[in-house]
Amino acid sequence: MTGQVNESVQSAVEAAAAAGEAWRATPPAERATVLEGVADALLKHAEDLWPAAEETRLPEARLRGEIARTAAQFRLFAEVLRDGGWVEAVIDHPDPGATPPRPDVRRMNHPLGVVAVFAASNFPFAFSVAGGDTASALAAGCPVVVKAHEGHPRTSDLTASVVRQALPDPGLLGLVHGFEAGEPLVKHPLVTAVGFTGSLAGGKAIQKLIDERPDPIPFYGELGSVNPVVVLPSADPAEVASGFAASLTLGVGQFCTNPGLVFLPAEGGFEQAVAEAVGATGGGPMLTGKIREGYLRQSGLLAERLTVLAGGSTVDGITPQVFAAGLDAFADGLPELAEECFGPAAIVVRYRDPADLPAVLRRLPGSLTATVHAAGPEEARDLVPVLSRLAGRLIWNGWPTGVAVSWAMHHGGPWPASTAPAHTSVGAASIGRWTTPVAYQDWPADLLPPELRDDNPLGVPQRVDGRRA
Amino acid sequence: MTGQVNESVQSAVEAAAAAGEAWRATPPAERATVLEGVADALLKHAEDLWPAAEETRLPEARLRGEIARTAAQFRLFAEVLRDGGWVEAVIDHPDPGATPPRPDVRRMNHPLGVVAVFAASNFPFAFSVAGGDTASALAAGCPVVVKAHEGHPRTSDLTASVVRQALPDPGLLGLVHGFEAGEPLVKHPLVTAVGFTGSLAGGKAIQKLIDERPDPIPFYGELGSVNPVVVLPSADPAEVASGFAASLTLGVGQFCTNPGLVFLPAEGGFEQAVAEAVGATGGGPMLTGKIREGYLRQSGLLAERLTVLAGGSTVDGITPQVFAAGLDAFADGLPELAEECFGPAAIVVRYRDPADLPAVLRRLPGSLTATVHAAGPEEARDLVPVLSRLAGRLIWNGWPTGVAVSWAMHHGGPWPASTAPAHTSVGAASIGRWTTPVAYQDWPADLLPPELRDDNPLGVPQRVDGRRA
Repeated sequence: MTGQVNESVQSAVEAAAAAGEAWRATPPAERATVLEGVADALLKHAEDLWPAAEETRLPEARLRGEIARTAAQFRLFAEVLRDGGWVEAVIDHPDPGATPPRPDVRRMNHPLGVVAVFAASNFPFAFSVAGGDTASALAAGCPVVVKAHEGHPRTSDLTASVVRQALPDPGLLGLVHGFEAGEPLVKHPLVTAVGFTGSLAGGKAIQKLIDERPDPIPFYGELGSVNPVVVLPSADPAEVASGFAASLTLGVGQFCTNPGLVFLPAEGGFEQAVAEAVGATGGGPMLTGKIREGYLRQSGLLAERLTVLAGGSTVDGITPQVFAAGLDAFADGLPELAEECFGPAAIVVRYRDPADLPAVLRRLPGSLTATVHAAGPEEARDLVPVLSRLAGRLIWNGWPTGVAVSWAMHHGGPWPASTAPAHTSVGAASIGRWTTPVAYQDWPADLLPPELRDDNPLGVPQRVDGRRA
Repeated sequence: MTGQVNESVQSAVEAAAAAGEAWRATPPAERATVLEGVADALLKHAEDLWPAAEETRLPEARLRGEIARTAAQFRLFAEVLRDGGWVEAVIDHPDPGATPPRPDVRRMNHPLGVVAVFAASNFPFAFSVAGGDTASALAAGCPVVVKAHEGHPRTSDLTASVVRQALPDPGLLGLVHGFEAGEPLVKHPLVTAVGFTGSLAGGKAIQKLIDERPDPIPFYGELGSVNPVVVLPSADPAEVASGFAASLTLGVGQFCTNPGLVFLPAEGGFEQAVAEAVGATGGGPMLTGKIREGYLRQSGLLAERLTVLAGGSTVDGITPQVFAAGLDAFADGLPELAEECFGPAAIVVRYRDPADLPAVLRRLPGSLTATVHAAGPEEARDLVPVLSRLAGRLIWNGWPTGVAVSWAMHHGGPWPASTAPAHTSVGAASIGRWTTPVAYQDWPADLLPPELRDDNPLGVPQRVDGRRA
């Protein structure tokens, strides 16, 4: 069994590396056309894809929406390639008068090589075989080998076959199955970077495998996030309560951006409003048996330590739950309270004086998002410097679930939100994870990539002698 | 002793964190003025600084030149701050018509926090207390704590005091001494990233300390490089030989960009020319006793395995040495031959057919540089795809020693040249190592950083709705 898995990893990585040679040499505009073809193929096969994904127990509307999002991700990267800014072309002409004389130096980003992608459980399309990691890596010029998530093997196989039809070489997208495939994939000498969306434990295990390589490679992992929400006294209790209940229970709480920790004023009726709104929600089937067990275990632990503020209806054995704690529970920085509980559970933290919040927020681990609810900006001013060091995305009077795929999006943050806080895993900038700069010194024009030539035949943005051209 | 070291680390990091609060809030243009003040202070105190650095045994002219380079690095980052492109400001206006409706999202880079810098042995100014890591981190808005190199403690103290005079708060530049300071510095909860230039063993030790943190932080290390040079048959033997001998022995070979592996045509008189040129060189005093012992040990190991092609004069017990091997020595990829030997030693690898080179080059570990010597571009065309995956800087008919500090420079490469191949440790882009993006969603204009406002009061480059504004 392990031998077979090893062989499947070996052949997928070798096929990817072989196919990658032509792909990295393909002009970006042609790669863009291929990505648009992938988007078209996904939409064309939507009627086959979404029913396959019923193995995730996610509803049709959600699955259809996710296929559209997945196609849109490929289209965004086609735009990114046509724009050309992603290569960050910089040209410094020589300065023979400088001491010492300065040579001609030109730099741009190049694709790394084979990228290993670990698919997530909770987005069978958008963070899986044809997800953002795959789309951004292919855009960068890197072939990909995906380790399928055990929760949706059929969807994974079908997606791979749909995407491959639109690729110039099917080897550009490898797919391997099984937990045991992780180690040989991460340790394969031809693999140059790893992308991962999953649990803290899973991320730590991958980092350990990478550290065991003779040549450790970059690891871009998104490992966990409690997504704190700060409700200030001027916020509207009814709006906060209804928004929170909806965000908490969306997709049975199975989002990395689920709001897990909500700071509520002790006065003003916020708790009652939240209790009522959450009481009107219901649970639902979770993605896999393992995730379901994890939720029951973790929410059970919270129930032992905290009082229950509210619970929704039990559906399929799953009950949305909100627990309550005082700000003093964070006096010694209880880490269990600040750990992600994957599913529709959250902790409400009651506070009396907003001035006490920064000290507690500073003690929280990194998150993908942090949210503020308030009637106006002045009340929140002192929180901004704290929140901007706590999370990669700050949200005003909204909710963290729902991540727009756009040029400005950032999906990352301090550990454990991300293993590489200089990078994002969603949006246009996520292509940067799969690239490495190369500088050319006194290099003949005939051998330069077109992006670095003085005549700029591709019309990419260039910085020339320190100025944006 | 350890207790005292721990205390000095503790107090330096705490002072840095405290001083960093105001520094990160200081407008970039004001930070630029401070950096220029540091450059002025370094030049003003050059007459005190270079004599202090005689403890490195480097000559006056080199030390004076290095102080000028160090000041120039601060000036480059002042330019980077005034340009504003480093924050990568991106604005996506809302699109209520999109499905789902897209919120307003704006992203830019922010400073990480306290940066720990491990100074290098071989550049007592340019890669030390006031080196590129410190200049780029301060530019980004991060306070710095430097672990001084044991090879130049007096220079380190004096440099720190000169720089501090020009800083608004002396706490922005902490300095700690002693090997034992490394662990508490890397593990301090307030430290947010580590910069390092040094040995493979040192870099691995730091990575291990980072992995032991509850929250692993980014590690930007430059660990070693053999800097292969490929001399093609059309190159001029006399020019190659004289250039090589000079680059090999510059600064007694104590550069991370020293040419350690030179592929020479078996025909054409290249070897004799190299042997003659190297025979005319001489050794010299090395930076520290430890480095000297390391060179004697490593060059001794090479002498046991390979034939000696040429040697220079012994000065201060140090002899430049060039060893010879055939291409077949790399048939099984002997890793010892591809490991950096810090000092004036190199291996010449004799080849008969240039077509045999790509297979061997593919087997080499990552390097900071790779160099080609040839009469014209055509002969080298097939090497470019191989070299661009082997090294971060490709040099044409030149030598790798000497790294220009400019907008386009890239100093990095695949492991072990760099622990983070998406980043550079020299040049304008090196500021990116100390930043993390933050996205603001539906955020009130009053609370946005000025770089993200629609009226763009600082005039920074913005990308708005996907287009460069």
